[in-house]
Amino acid sequence: MGVITLLTDFGHRDSYVGVMKGVIASISPQSQIIDLTHGLQPQAILAARFNLITSYLYFPVGTIHVVVVDPGVGTQRAAIAAEVSVPAGLQTIIAPDNGILTGFSIKAVTALTNPDYWYTPEPSNTFHGRDIFAPMAAHLANGIPIGELGTSLPVSSLVSLNINHAVVTDQGYRGSLQYIDHFGNLVTTIPGDGLTSQLWYVQLGTYICPYRPTYGRMELGEALALVGSHGYVEIAVNGGNAHQAFQANVGDAVELIYVRHGSDTVAL
Amino acid sequence: MGVITLLTDFGHRDSYVGVMKGVIASISPQSQIIDLTHGLQPQAILAARFNLITSYLYFPVGTIHVVVVDPGVGTQRAAIAAEVSVPAGLQTIIAPDNGILTGFSIKAVTALTNPDYWYTPEPSNTFHGRDIFAPMAAHLANGIPIGELGTSLPVSSLVSLNINHAVVTDQGYRGSLQYIDHFGNLVTTIPGDGLTSQLWYVQLGTYICPYRPTYGRMELGEALALVGSHGYVEIAVNGGNAHQAFQANVGDAVELIYVRHGSDTVAL
Amino acid sequence: MGVITLLTDFGHRDSYVGVMKGVIASISPQSQIIDLTHGLQPQAILAARFNLITSYLYFPVGTIHVVVVDPGVGTQRAAIAAEVSVPAGLQTIIAPDNGILTGFSIKAVTALTNPDYWYTPEPSNTFHGRDIFAPMAAHLANGIPIGELGTSLPVSSLVSLNINHAVVTDQGYRGSLQYIDHFGNLVTTIPGDGLTSQLWYVQLGTYICPYRPTYGRMELGEALALVGSHGYVEIAVNGGNAHQAFQANVGDAVELIYVRHGSDTVAL
Repeated sequence: MGVITLLTDFGHRDSYVGVMKGVIASISPQSQIIDLTHGLQPQAILAARFNLITSYLYFPVGTIHVVVVDPGVGTQRAAIAAEVSVPAGLQTIIAPDNGILTGFSIKAVTALTNPDYWYTPEPSNTFHGRDIFAPMAAHLANGIPIGELGTSLPVSSLVSLNINHAVVTDQGYRGSLQYIDHFGNLVTTIPGDGLTSQLWYVQLGTYICPYRPTYGRMELGEALALVGSHGYVEIAVNGGNAHQAFQANVGDAVELIYVRHGSDTVAL
Repeated sequence: MGVITLLTDFGHRDSYVGVMKGVIASISPQSQIIDLTHGLQPQAILAARFNLITSYLYFPVGTIHVVVVDPGVGTQRAAIAAEVSVPAGLQTIIAPDNGILTGFSIKAVTALTNPDYWYTPEPSNTFHGRDIFAPMAAHLANGIPIGELGTSLPVSSLVSLNINHAVVTDQGYRGSLQYIDHFGNLVTTIPGDGLTSQLWYVQLGTYICPYRPTYGRMELGEALALVGSHGYVEIAVNGGNAHQAFQANVGDAVELIYVRHGSDTVAL
Repeated sequence: MGVITLLTDFGHRDSYVGVMKGVIASISPQSQIIDLTHGLQPQAILAARFNLITSYLYFPVGTIHVVVVDPGVGTQRAAIAAEVSVPAGLQTIIAPDNGILTGFSIKAVTALTNPDYWYTPEPSNTFHGRDIFAPMAAHLANGIPIGELGTSLPVSSLVSLNINHAVVTDQGYRGSLQYIDHFGNLVTTIPGDGLTSQLWYVQLGTYICPYRPTYGRMELGEALALVGSHGYVEIAVNGGNAHQAFQANVGDAVELIYVRHGSDTVAL
């Protein structure tokens, strides 16, 4: 029984996600369908990418991820299936070619052009999730070779987004906010590798957020910085909501500054 | 492994939907449970019907749809299982008899009166989803004949809602808004059949929304009309939210007007 | 195929819940995963407990419930698996030791200290749902004996919350509001046992809410009290939202007062 995940901006009011599951269950009833999330802001491609790239490694080899954040539906943008490397093998990401795959280790790409595996030979102009992406995922889960789904595309032809990366500075890192989660935690672009054994703080505007290994190491209502479960430095408020506290937005600049032992620059 | 879908107005805060799934898993562990949606406004029977009637054909033959939008729970309203025709066979809709089935092709109706298949011989007065609808669906999925679940009812006895239908006019159609989705798209009652090969626009109040085959054919922020994935004409704003832009509501009148070649009535 | 339920305060915007399901599907692909709810207010331990204690009996024997409402993640609070009695056997609740298990009939408790069954030998400080709770549940579902997951703890060592209970008075009960659901129904701490055969009303501040067996027995917009599906007395507004109508909050005092036949104290 293979796993098919769904990641959309469809929200929770309508039956659009349910319909995609109906199509999958019709074609591949033995597949296990898992919701990655459907609560993204409409057409939030960068947020979709963030959720996918911080999640896919927790799924089994062979998982098929279907991403439908698709402002270009009905235009000439390609629909693709990309094989991506994971430690023990491959997974497949099925999505519109709009940059969601930026930063993944892609081995091969197929354009989903074979109408034999669409839900209908005349797909709608507004819901390729139902008419193309879901049925293609289900057929792939059934063992149809990916080469049957359409024509091969060069990996280099994919749309690539301009992703902000943190840069190393004399004092630490300069980065920005890349994602804000349900708890109001402000996720930065600064990678957390190696940081948990050091002393540092993050500056957001005029605010100073000292590093603490866990939320519980600050008083309730106090801000801190830590390495989040996704591997990036994040700003949080213990028992509170950093997004509300700081009124910060995706893209806002942050600085990570190491605290030098013996220095008196900052008392944390 | 059969499919049981759930469509309720229970929202996402409480464990009510989870409890229904627990009941189903207790009785019919091999059934696949799919959420159609739980995000309807409380007691929004027309919205429940819209979501079901635009979704059910995408599910396998034999699917059992459980609908719990039930303002009359605990009163004398009947609980029913209706067998509905789909191209390759039958599906079953289990619901309170409150008009949700209006417009479906119903072959037979059974009142769910046999307490042997309720969850408890003394159902609550407030949660028939748990006590009657979910267990009945699970027993049906297990192969219990529908005639065992209760007594037959004449199809003509069902509650029928007054559904607004668009009417043909000299110029095109006169209809109304029947549903507003998560993206703010305004779904009208005007059927889309045959419209994609013609030129037309939709008038909503004093606003003119020209037909375009896809969102991407308008500039960002501009309104258009198109045939939505559900088969009805809808009004959308490319990259935006028509509901917010037009402050329109379900029931508001719309007109579809064909553009006659050579005429100068409207420059689109 | 066993059932694993998930109950968190993770909301619906991010892929955190999806990632937990990915971990479970990686370890125990045959398990059926059911969402209890993810819509709790952040860190609402009492609401999590209310949803779990009013839901678990509707799940099969052997069900594993995973609860991740975890303000103390990363601190010294224990992670536990508790075996709880249900009529036909046992279920297991996997959770942080923060009081969520208060009031359950617990037979044995194991601290989840064996890193062989964690997702990684170095769990994050912020997401034990992914790194400890989900993988432990999956291994348990696979048949790993609970004693393998860590060391036994005395049941008496668990954190216990101070739960408000209604008290019997000369006139009926004195209690408080313990939960407010999606519909705005105000759930009290007053047990409903035996109440449906009597006459009574509930007083909330200066408001009088007469007992009626069903919502439909009042006019639309009128308030009533009844025994909810969870077994507690609740205050509702027929076709409306009692929370909005009364602006009441969890903890607010309520009184249940029996109506004595022949008395003229209250005309209902």
